[in-house]
Amino acid sequence: MKATLIVTCPDQRGLVAAIAGFLAQHEANIVEFQETVSAEDGQFFARVVFEVSGSSIAAEEIGPAFTPLARRFDMQWKVYFSTQRKRMGILVSRYDHCMFDLLQRVKSGELAVDVPFVVSNHADLEHVATFFGVPFHHLPVTAATKPEQEARIKALADEARADFLVMARYMQILSGELLGHFPHRVINIHHSFLPAFIGGRPYHQAYERGVKLIGATAHYATEDLDEGPIIDQDVVRVHHGETIDDLVRKGRDIERVVLARAVRMHTENRVVVSGRRTIVFA
Amino acid sequence: MKATLIVTCPDQRGLVAAIAGFLAQHEANIVEFQETVSAEDGQFFARVVFEVSGSSIAAEEIGPAFTPLARRFDMQWKVYFSTQRKRMGILVSRYDHCMFDLLQRVKSGELAVDVPFVVSNHADLEHVATFFGVPFHHLPVTAATKPEQEARIKALADEARADFLVMARYMQILSGELLGHFPHRVINIHHSFLPAFIGGRPYHQAYERGVKLIGATAHYATEDLDEGPIIDQDVVRVHHGETIDDLVRKGRDIERVVLARAVRMHTENRVVVSGRRTIVFA
Amino acid sequence: MKATLIVTCPDQRGLVAAIAGFLAQHEANIVEFQETVSAEDGQFFARVVFEVSGSSIAAEEIGPAFTPLARRFDMQWKVYFSTQRKRMGILVSRYDHCMFDLLQRVKSGELAVDVPFVVSNHADLEHVATFFGVPFHHLPVTAATKPEQEARIKALADEARADFLVMARYMQILSGELLGHFPHRVINIHHSFLPAFIGGRPYHQAYERGVKLIGATAHYATEDLDEGPIIDQDVVRVHHGETIDDLVRKGRDIERVVLARAVRMHTENRVVVSGRRTIVFA
Amino acid sequence: MKATLIVTCPDQRGLVAAIAGFLAQHEANIVEFQETVSAEDGQFFARVVFEVSGSSIAAEEIGPAFTPLARRFDMQWKVYFSTQRKRMGILVSRYDHCMFDLLQRVKSGELAVDVPFVVSNHADLEHVATFFGVPFHHLPVTAATKPEQEARIKALADEARADFLVMARYMQILSGELLGHFPHRVINIHHSFLPAFIGGRPYHQAYERGVKLIGATAHYATEDLDEGPIIDQDVVRVHHGETIDDLVRKGRDIERVVLARAVRMHTENRVVVSGRRTIVFA
Repeated sequence: MKATLIVTCPDQRGLVAAIAGFLAQHEANIVEFQETVSAEDGQFFARVVFEVSGSSIAAEEIGPAFTPLARRFDMQWKVYFSTQRKRMGILVSRYDHCMFDLLQRVKSGELAVDVPFVVSNHADLEHVATFFGVPFHHLPVTAATKPEQEARIKALADEARADFLVMARYMQILSGELLGHFPHRVINIHHSFLPAFIGGRPYHQAYERGVKLIGATAHYATEDLDEGPIIDQDVVRVHHGETIDDLVRKGRDIERVVLARAVRMHTENRVVVSGRRTIVFA
Repeated sequence: MKATLIVTCPDQRGLVAAIAGFLAQHEANIVEFQETVSAEDGQFFARVVFEVSGSSIAAEEIGPAFTPLARRFDMQWKVYFSTQRKRMGILVSRYDHCMFDLLQRVKSGELAVDVPFVVSNHADLEHVATFFGVPFHHLPVTAATKPEQEARIKALADEARADFLVMARYMQILSGELLGHFPHRVINIHHSFLPAFIGGRPYHQAYERGVKLIGATAHYATEDLDEGPIIDQDVVRVHHGETIDDLVRKGRDIERVVLARAVRMHTENRVVVSGRRTIVFA
Repeated sequence: MKATLIVTCPDQRGLVAAIAGFLAQHEANIVEFQETVSAEDGQFFARVVFEVSGSSIAAEEIGPAFTPLARRFDMQWKVYFSTQRKRMGILVSRYDHCMFDLLQRVKSGELAVDVPFVVSNHADLEHVATFFGVPFHHLPVTAATKPEQEARIKALADEARADFLVMARYMQILSGELLGHFPHRVINIHHSFLPAFIGGRPYHQAYERGVKLIGATAHYATEDLDEGPIIDQDVVRVHHGETIDDLVRKGRDIERVVLARAVRMHTENRVVVSGRRTIVFA
Repeated sequence: MKATLIVTCPDQRGLVAAIAGFLAQHEANIVEFQETVSAEDGQFFARVVFEVSGSSIAAEEIGPAFTPLARRFDMQWKVYFSTQRKRMGILVSRYDHCMFDLLQRVKSGELAVDVPFVVSNHADLEHVATFFGVPFHHLPVTAATKPEQEARIKALADEARADFLVMARYMQILSGELLGHFPHRVINIHHSFLPAFIGGRPYHQAYERGVKLIGATAHYATEDLDEGPIIDQDVVRVHHGETIDDLVRKGRDIERVVLARAVRMHTENRVVVSGRRTIVFA
C-alpha cells in the first residue's frame, strides 16, 4: 500500500527536511517527492508518495503522528491511500463522446476509479451506461424542478459515497448550493480555450471570431460559470475552410483527451487548488 | 515571372472554369490553384499563381484582358507580380526579439521583402537596424505629438513606397486615421491567444487566470485594438512552477514564429480578409 | 448528390481549365477544387467535388463523357459518389481502444462509413462488436493456418463488398498476397513516429532511446512492414519520469486520433498515393 | 547566492530526508527540490536549489561538509553556484540561424552564459560574431588537418575556461578524442526527429519518406554520431505541397527553439545523463 500526502503551508526553512524526516523516522520509503513555491504569495505546496507497506507505521497512525508537525508549520494537509479507489459520479446530457471515453478508460484500467452512477437529464444514453455496467439515473430538470433535481443528485452522490463528480458535457449549470457540497470536487469540461469564449456556443463564437486554433478546458466547477480553477487545456489547429460542424468534430477530440487527463490528475491526487490557479504535479 | 491573382466574388457556377479558361486561352501555365467558399455567406475566394513568362500575354495586358470577365462575375480582384518585391516598414519600441527575427529572416532570404525603414519611438534599437543595413528613424511620441508623429510615419511609408507595415512589438496604438491609409496592410503581433487577454499585460493576466497554455496572435491592426482579423496563432504549454518572467520568455518564442509566419503569408499574397475572418491559402 | 473526381497525370498547361470546363459545360457546380503538382516528378494531382444534382449530366454518364478528355491528358482518374457510403472492415486483436473509437465515431455519424464486419484472431472483443451491432468473426491464426485464415478474411471482405480494411491494432502482419487484393485500401496504425522504431515494441524502443516525444503513424499497409505511404502522424510529449506503461497509455490517445483522421481522409477520398508519399487534400 | 546540488545514487530509504536534513542543519532554505527514480535500474536522481546566502554555511564549506553523507549513500554529486556563470563556446559552419538565435538570447539576458568565442571552419559568419562582440576564430579543417584543428579548438576552450560547447549547425563530426575532453558537455542540434533520419540530409530523407511531421533534436554529442543522449526534441507539421526547401525553412524554426531550450536546461544544471537517456528537471 502507498500513501499520498498533500501539504500546503507558508514557505519556510526546513519544510522538506521536516516532511522527509518524518517519513524516514517511520522507515517509509519515498516514491515521489514534488514541491513548488508560489512566487506570488510564498505558499509551499508538496505532494509526497510513500510506501506504507514496509514502513514502521500503520496507515491509521499516520494522521495522528503527523499532526504535531503539521501544526508547527501551519500546514493544511491530507493523506490518501492507494487502497481507497476514488468513486466518480458522471453527469451527462445528450452528447456521448466524453462519457464513452471516460467509461472505456475505466473499463480498460487506465483510470483507477469506480463509477457508481451516471446521472442524466435525458434518457438517451442509458444504453451506454448499461453496456459498461453502470447504474443510470434519468433525472429530468426544469427551472422549477432544479432544486429538487439537484437534491436528488446530492442524495445519490452521498449514498454512493462519490468522491467527485464529472460533468461530461452536462449541459446544465450546477447551483452554488450543490457545488458547495463538493468543493473542488466537480470537474467540468468547457469546449473552448478559457477564458476565451465563455458561455454558450463557444464553437460558434470561435468560428465568428476567426481564430486559428480551438481549445478545450477542464476546470473545477464554481458558481461563476467557466471561472473555476483550470486543471488542463489543449488546442487544435483549424483553418478557414472548416465549418462550425468541423470545429465541433475536431473539438470533441480535445474535449475527450483534456477531460480524461484532468480526471486522471485528480484521481491520482496531483491537483492542488491555489486561489484561481491550480498546482498540477504531473 | 509569375503572377498571383486574388479573386473574391459571390459563388456561382462556372467560376473555376472561367478563371482557368482565361489563363488557358492566354497559354499561361497554372502553378497553384486554391479556392474556398465561405459556408456562411456564399462568397468565393481564389488564389491562382500562374506563369506569365511563356504565356501569350504581357504582364501589363492581364488587367485589361481580365476586366470583362471580372465584371461578368462581379469580382473584386488583384494581380501581384513576382518581380515586385513587397516593401515592409517595421515599427518597434524597445523589445528587440521580433525585429531581430524579421531582419534575420530577410537577410537570409527566407522572407522575400525589402525593408526600407525601421521606425521606433525609442532610440534603443538603432544599432540593430544599422547592423542589418536598414535606415532607422527615431520618432518619439507623446499624447500631444501623436498626430504629428503618425503623419511622419505616413510620410515615411509613402516616400519609401512601403506596401505594408509590421508592428513588431510596437507598444503604441495606431490611430484609425493612420490605419485607414493602410487597410489590411498593418500586421500586429499580440502576446496572447486572442480573444483571451485583450489589452495590456496579457502574460500577467494569463498568469493570474492560471491558464495552462499561453499564446500569440498575429492580426491585421484595426481601430478596435486586438479585434482585427487574425492571420495566425500559436500556443505553448506552461506549468504552475513558471513565473510571469518565464511566461514572457516562452511567449517570445511563439511571438517570433507567429509573426514571421503571418508576414510570409501576407508577402506571398496568401491572406484574404473576409469580415472579421481571414482566408489563409497556406 | 455530389461527386468527387480524383485525377493524376503529368502536369501540363490547360489542365485546370479542361477539368473545370468539362464540369461547367455540364452545368455542374464545383464545391471544392484542390490541386497540387509534385515538385520532384511534375505529376499533377487534383480532387474536385461537384454537385451532380442540378447539373445537366446524370451520374452514370460522367465516366463516358469524361473519358476523351482523360485520354487527351493521359489521366488516371476515378469518380466517387456521395450516395455510395464506403464499407469498412475492421481487423483487431486484443487491444480495444482503436476499435472502440472507430465504432463510436461511426455510431455518432462522424465517420460516414458502414462497418459490415469485425474480424479478430482473438475472441475477447466480441461484446464490443455486439454492442455496436457489428457482426464479429473470430478467425484465430497460426503460422500454419495463416493462408487459410487470410483466404477467409478475403472472402468475408468480398462478400461484404468492403471498400477498405482497417488494422485497428491488429497484431498480425498481412501477407503480400492478401494486401495485393486491396492496393492502398488497407490502413494500419503503427504505434511510433515512423520511420523511427520500426517493428515490434516501439514504446519499449522509444523508452530505451530516451526520446522526448512519442508518436503514432497511420499508413497504407504494404508487404514491407511499416514502410507503406504515410497518411497521418502525430506526437505527444513524454518526460523522464514516465515509465513504458505511461508511454503506452499516452500513445493510445494519439493512436486513436491519428487512425480516425486517416480513416476520415480516406473515406472522403482525400488521399492520393504517389510512390512512397501521399497527397492528403485536407 | 544560490547553489544547485545534483545527486545520483542507488535509490534507498531516507535519501530525501538526508539531503534536506543536511541543508536544514545548515539553515539553507530549499528553493526547488526535484527528484526521480528510474524504474528500470532503481537509480535516484535529485536536483536541489538552495540559498547559500542567509545559511550558516559558506560556499566553500558545502563540499567538505556534504562528503560524509555522500559516501554513506554512495552518491555521485556536484554543486554549482549561481555566481559562476557558465562559459559557452560556439562551433558553427555557414548556417547562421542557430548562432544568431543563441547570441541574441545571450544578449537579451535570456541565457545566463558568457560566450568567450565562436569557432568556425568557414569565414562567413565573422561579422555576426563581431556584431555581438564575441571573438571569432576561423579554423578551417580538412581530413588531413583535423587532429590539428581539433587540438586548437581544445586549446581555445581550455584557455577560455569554456564549460561547454554548442555545435550550432557545425557541419563537422568531432572526434572521440575531442569529445572525451568534454563528457556530456558538447551539445549538438540534429535537424531530424531522432532516431529517424540519422546522418546526412535528413530533410531530404524526410521528404522522400513522406512524413507528415519534421523534427529537430538537441543531444549531447558522442562518438557515435546522432546516438548521444537526447535533451530535447520538437516537431512541426508539413504537408504534401511543401518542397524540401520548405522543410528546411520550417525546420530552422524548431532547430533554433529546441537548441535554445537544451542550452538553457544545461545552463541551469537541469540535465542529468543516465546511460542513453537524460533526466531533464524542467
